Amino acid sequence: MTDPAEPDAKTPKTARGQRTLRALLDAATEEFAQKGFHDAAISEITKRAGVAIGSFYTYFDSKEAIFTALVRDLSERVRGDVAPALRAAPDPIARERAGQRAYLEFVGAHREIYRIVDQAEFVAPESYRAHYETTAGRIATRLEEARQSGDISDGDAEIRAWAIMGMNVFLGLRFGVWSDDADFDKVAAVGGDLIAFGLSPDRA
Amino acid sequence: MTDPAEPDAKTPKTARGQRTLRALLDAATEEFAQKGFHDAAISEITKRAGVAIGSFYTYFDSKEAIFTALVRDLSERVRGDVAPALRAAPDPIARERAGQRAYLEFVGAHREIYRIVDQAEFVAPESYRAHYETTAGRIATRLEEARQSGDISDGDAEIRAWAIMGMNVFLGLRFGVWSDDADFDKVAAVGGDLIAFGLSPDRA
Repeated sequence: MTDPAEPDAKTPKTARGQRTLRALLDAATEEFAQKGFHDAAISEITKRAGVAIGSFYTYFDSKEAIFTALVRDLSERVRGDVAPALRAAPDPIARERAGQRAYLEFVGAHREIYRIVDQAEFVAPESYRAHYETTAGRIATRLEEARQSGDISDGDAEIRAWAIMGMNVFLGLRFGVWSDDADFDKVAAVGGDLIAFGLSPDRA
Repeated sequence: MTDPAEPDAKTPKTARGQRTLRALLDAATEEFAQKGFHDAAISEITKRAGVAIGSFYTYFDSKEAIFTALVRDLSERVRGDVAPALRAAPDPIARERAGQRAYLEFVGAHREIYRIVDQAEFVAPESYRAHYETTAGRIATRLEEARQSGDISDGDAEIRAWAIMGMNVFLGLRFGVWSDDADFDKVAAVGGDLIAFGLSPDRA
């Protein structure tokens, strides 16, 4: 098993190399999402990417290696996509609302993320675990700061982080992946209210 | 694709038949969880169950058929296991807390459920979807009743149901499947407070 903390892709030194690597990862996303890991072929990935098969081996040793790199790449893309919304939020609860909203948008635009990440549970279990642990760790850090500053109530940050991540993942599955016309404003308003106030009828 | 609304297992008419069917489903749980769907073999399932291979075909037409039946069986076992805790709860918010707590206990005792359900996304996608839609539907029905009676605040029951189910699934993954010594009392207290009150520091 590859250590998910170690990069699998050899880092390209040139802009052209970076474009080739990006093309390979995008082609791999399509190939793995459509065919599944076992039926996916390196020759099809290079064909989709429009590069010679030798270029593949410049960056990856195997189908496993590009898959593991792809899970980490998707993790990073979600993080990068959601980050501006988090930074723009005026307070910690608004930040979690904004994170959920931005995540729904990302999922709606990149539905294949679920098929890739969920396959990782079986194909690259350490990457699967690292993906969720890293994401939950980021949420927990935000929540712990907010708890210390008194912006949210007391409560274990790690447990809350996994709960909020689970909400986001399942709202994304139902309304981002399985719906074509979901109203993300409504989903995020209801989901955000649940994060902020829970179900209690006695809202302060 | 099999219609998940249609039973795949032929219903046994005798107590002995029911025991054989149960033994086959339990053996299939082990076989699929350990080897994965593609490497699992009907002959290994019957060997684990201690029944003749002909008995398998009395109840199932194929490896796909027993897998689909197994996902539905696990759904039903979760529902049956959690139901007493739901019935014993004094009010709707306590009910969601109790449901989460009982689900964590179930997962801790049956960690293999995740490997089975998560494989279904690829092996039997309609069963996968049916599993979550049925579960979310039950939660939404409870929430809609509670909303109408004023026991919880206003808010779309379906969106809330998917959010709460997601919380439960991810708390179960982190603290039931990936931990050997998680304190379920603590996890359910923190998770239950999030369901009840959210993160707001201004609890009523």
